Amino acid sequence: MNETNIDTITVIGAGSWGTALSMVLADNGCHVRLWGHNPQQIVEINEHHTNKKYLPNVILPENIKGFASMEEALNGVELIVLAVPTKAIREVVRQMVEILKKPITLVHVSKGIEPDTLMRISEMIEEEMPSRLLTDLIVLSGPSHAEEVSQRQPTTVTVSSKNIKAAEKIQKLFMNQHFRVYTNPDMIGVEIGGALKNVIALAAGISDGLGYGDNAKAALITRGLAEIARLGTKMGANPLTFSGLAGLGDLIVTCTSVHSRNWRAGNLLGKGKNLNEVLENMGMVVEGVRTTKAAYQLSQNYNVKMPITTALYQVLFHNYDPKKAVDELMTRMRTHEMEDLSGILDARMNE
Amino acid sequence: MNETNIDTITVIGAGSWGTALSMVLADNGCHVRLWGHNPQQIVEINEHHTNKKYLPNVILPENIKGFASMEEALNGVELIVLAVPTKAIREVVRQMVEILKKPITLVHVSKGIEPDTLMRISEMIEEEMPSRLLTDLIVLSGPSHAEEVSQRQPTTVTVSSKNIKAAEKIQKLFMNQHFRVYTNPDMIGVEIGGALKNVIALAAGISDGLGYGDNAKAALITRGLAEIARLGTKMGANPLTFSGLAGLGDLIVTCTSVHSRNWRAGNLLGKGKNLNEVLENMGMVVEGVRTTKAAYQLSQNYNVKMPITTALYQVLFHNYDPKKAVDELMTRMRTHEMEDLSGILDARMNE
Repeated sequence: MNETNIDTITVIGAGSWGTALSMVLADNGCHVRLWGHNPQQIVEINEHHTNKKYLPNVILPENIKGFASMEEALNGVELIVLAVPTKAIREVVRQMVEILKKPITLVHVSKGIEPDTLMRISEMIEEEMPSRLLTDLIVLSGPSHAEEVSQRQPTTVTVSSKNIKAAEKIQKLFMNQHFRVYTNPDMIGVEIGGALKNVIALAAGISDGLGYGDNAKAALITRGLAEIARLGTKMGANPLTFSGLAGLGDLIVTCTSVHSRNWRAGNLLGKGKNLNEVLENMGMVVEGVRTTKAAYQLSQNYNVKMPITTALYQVLFHNYDPKKAVDELMTRMRTHEMEDLSGILDARMNE
Repeated sequence: MNETNIDTITVIGAGSWGTALSMVLADNGCHVRLWGHNPQQIVEINEHHTNKKYLPNVILPENIKGFASMEEALNGVELIVLAVPTKAIREVVRQMVEILKKPITLVHVSKGIEPDTLMRISEMIEEEMPSRLLTDLIVLSGPSHAEEVSQRQPTTVTVSSKNIKAAEKIQKLFMNQHFRVYTNPDMIGVEIGGALKNVIALAAGISDGLGYGDNAKAALITRGLAEIARLGTKMGANPLTFSGLAGLGDLIVTCTSVHSRNWRAGNLLGKGKNLNEVLENMGMVVEGVRTTKAAYQLSQNYNVKMPITTALYQVLFHNYDPKKAVDELMTRMRTHEMEDLSGILDARMNE
């Protein structure tokens, strides 16, 4: 058992990230209950110790047990890791609320913003879960492809919570030789950084899909982080968070790795496929598509210029030509770089 | 002819970057005199319009003429682009000083810091060239692999000078549909960002060479930019520059692209080769090796913690084991992320 005295943890969501995090916790000596909605997958986890659809070539430790019943999975636990797509959060939390009898600590590891309500994940959770059931809410984010975590490759992440003590407890729980966990008190920034990097990853994928090179992609990532930081600081985040693991770090890994679903989706768009074809082709959730809509709406509400987000919104939702969009982004940027960058700090000054 | 009324430009240095920039200027209608120290290469440029050692598969425009004589190359020109390795800067500038009769505007495109003197490139140039011969000195930097520029792939760069009007003139001269040029008044930051990214690229290459994944590399890049910014702001740079094209942008392209010499050198080190084998194997200048020494010295002089630079210095110059160095970097970082990041702004506050 690890030094936090937490023996049993339930992970809700048996996709690649939920499964990889279960492995980290199992490596640290916890008994992990991994809940998934697909009974066949749960049988596979319990009988073969694999989860091939999401993490091929990985053998799961024996202290991970699959659960098809959420009631059984939640029975008596004090700590729950929520690892479901943004789209499913409200429904899954409602199911949990019906079952839970005692308050729990919840770690969410999803990345997105809800379109229309424009809520961050923690806000959605707080709207669905009565505070009498929620001791603490923590977000875990950072540059962390599930595939690499499951292979015990060196990985660093950030945890954040309104209650720093709760974040430090989660830090201890997950920390090991391969998986390094840092704390950051800026929950807004950590959630915004994690969500909005998927928008820029789609744009970077489009650029690559069009056959443009590393120079173009580096420009998009640079300008992309600047527009994320401009919006985030207006929303109350600390601008420094966007220079950290949950900002820059996650953005880099998502824009430059072949593991990234959002990059791959963008790549297919750049190669001429339309959005429906791309989403069918992927077979997994592409968070960036919904987040682009939300980010566009946020840029309007907060009156922040977000040229990459806006261009991508036009491509995804109004059939704008991807090549035209990227070419315009490359040629229509301001000519004095500081005008673009100073917005990051100006936003903070105007708080 | 372009709108700056500059008809003839001399580019000193016929390596990949000097040649690619000559192509940009030639595309913009300038007559370019490309000087190189190897007479055979100059014959190749003039007779075959190629420069195969540095840019295979590229045909040079006819308005680029190769010059083996620096005297002829400099005769009557007002604008010179200096594109030689950092190590050769002083010697080449001394040669130029002996020849020049009238003052010139100089654009330098090198990336490095001189060990021991700890001078930036512009400081080295100013030390060698009498001010009566130097109308303006401009630096051009940013995420720009020469190979992609020579293929007219979309590229963005930053120009900076103590004289903003001079920077704007150079912006106009180079700007075209594929090659976008931004101005930034922070010359110190632009030069520091360009130089120090090569240190981080070596470290990223080592991590990749050791077989570590994208998660580890993203963490190194993130922490790397933070340490560059900490040092740079102490040296008088604007911290925002490190979030721009010459900071983050160039860092990303250098750490994630197979074109990058510094990344490739690090990769070989990670695979177990020693420094001498690596340098022989490359056959081109690896700026990051000398810059690591200089950056380490700067971190000592300015009393700035630069863990990645320090680890790399030990690997390169004291035979420290690369795997041990990267593993220590991953496990010995601080546990509160803001302690690392806030140094970026603290440094500025303490100016």
